[in-house]
Amino acid sequence: MKIAITGKGGVGKTTLSGTLAFLLARTYKVFVIDADPDMNLASSMGVHTEITPISKMKDLIKERTGAEPGSAFGEVFKINPQISDLPEAMSVKFDDYKNLRLLVMGTVLKGGEGCICPASVLLKALMRNLILKKDEIIILDMEAGIEHLGRRTAEAVDVMIIVVEPGLKSLETAERIKKLATDIGIKRILVVINKVSNAMEEEFTTNKLDKLGFEILGCIPRDELVIQAEMEDKPLVDYQQSIALQSINHILENLLNYHSRN
Amino acid sequence: MKIAITGKGGVGKTTLSGTLAFLLARTYKVFVIDADPDMNLASSMGVHTEITPISKMKDLIKERTGAEPGSAFGEVFKINPQISDLPEAMSVKFDDYKNLRLLVMGTVLKGGEGCICPASVLLKALMRNLILKKDEIIILDMEAGIEHLGRRTAEAVDVMIIVVEPGLKSLETAERIKKLATDIGIKRILVVINKVSNAMEEEFTTNKLDKLGFEILGCIPRDELVIQAEMEDKPLVDYQQSIALQSINHILENLLNYHSRN
Repeated sequence: MKIAITGKGGVGKTTLSGTLAFLLARTYKVFVIDADPDMNLASSMGVHTEITPISKMKDLIKERTGAEPGSAFGEVFKINPQISDLPEAMSVKFDDYKNLRLLVMGTVLKGGEGCICPASVLLKALMRNLILKKDEIIILDMEAGIEHLGRRTAEAVDVMIIVVEPGLKSLETAERIKKLATDIGIKRILVVINKVSNAMEEEFTTNKLDKLGFEILGCIPRDELVIQAEMEDKPLVDYQQSIALQSINHILENLLNYHSRN
Repeated sequence: MKIAITGKGGVGKTTLSGTLAFLLARTYKVFVIDADPDMNLASSMGVHTEITPISKMKDLIKERTGAEPGSAFGEVFKINPQISDLPEAMSVKFDDYKNLRLLVMGTVLKGGEGCICPASVLLKALMRNLILKKDEIIILDMEAGIEHLGRRTAEAVDVMIIVVEPGLKSLETAERIKKLATDIGIKRILVVINKVSNAMEEEFTTNKLDKLGFEILGCIPRDELVIQAEMEDKPLVDYQQSIALQSINHILENLLNYHSRN
């Protein structure tokens, strides 16, 4: 299964992506990819080493195979499009989660160097060409907002999860994402409501989403432990008493049920 | 003065941009521009009409002057680079704020249509060529994250304000923004701390910012009225009792003092 997590900036995409990755890695082989040039996924998963981005993959393939960049990338994945072909140097492993790998798309290293369109093209090709085994899951933590949908970065995913929070702004973004994702052929779109403080906020948001025709996967309460985890620089999955973590566990069950039905 | 408001997604850039615009419009002529393709500024300022984006400016100039797109845009602003040359159709007026205009850069209208690089180029040219009068202020509400700094969209601003919130993620982004903004020659960089729940969070964030060498412009408490304003679809400036609004008023004074000193 290939999953993309999208939504307005700050709704909690990265926390959800990282936590789902940790939880899924108990049962599946999980590859979680930071597709946001403003990379926060690694640090939110407790990783502080430098990671070679996918945008450097061409160079690595050239190094290993002697093939010219450009053609080489597509070729390698056409011949043997398996996740095990991803250069080892490009992913981070976790001591406590043997089945989990973290990758990053790439960032802006110098002001004025240009956009991240080329890195997006590489990631898109990778997502399109990879053939997953039954026990393999890819989670893409997308950049905030909608530009990646103009670029089709996530067009090959099986499920897109849009994260929203109470208030109209992130719902506006969700509507835009749904429209643009449908344009590029993504059919399975689900919503997670995050940072819910009270029943009034949940009702407000659920009603709006129902009217917009969204299928809701679950609801995560506002939880001070999420902020505390971040300030203590540890992943949320380390806080077993977190009510947000418990909700994400529940959302995971719903997601797997949804996937087996669809 | 040309101001860009930047920061990680969801930290409150749009709320700060819109509220500063309303407050400044009591004394100055203010042009507030939504530079985020995932446009939320208009709705957060209570505007729900469709707005012709700056990305369509070439077409409008061609219509008015008969000149070919491409060269025409630069020419118009070289001959008479004043904000009054902006086509009227491109900005929204406010009944209660005669000195305020809202503009939008442009968005992704169809999934797969491409990136927003061309719209960014237009906005960059506009920002570089406009010569402001003393009583004119431009506020740019930038897109979340760092990609706009690769594109130099905001290179011509006088002051860049980075919004952060308690937690490491938005501070990581702030560090990246500062580095990239310095690369493209932006010298005056200030920070606003938003969504502060308690003294511990304020101290944590202030200490981190001090260590990173940031100048702090002010601090905005977490305020349920910000969420309420959004759910009731009204601008924050309508909630006179809001403690967040009071803090933004204070930040505005600090900004004007800073500007007159620098």
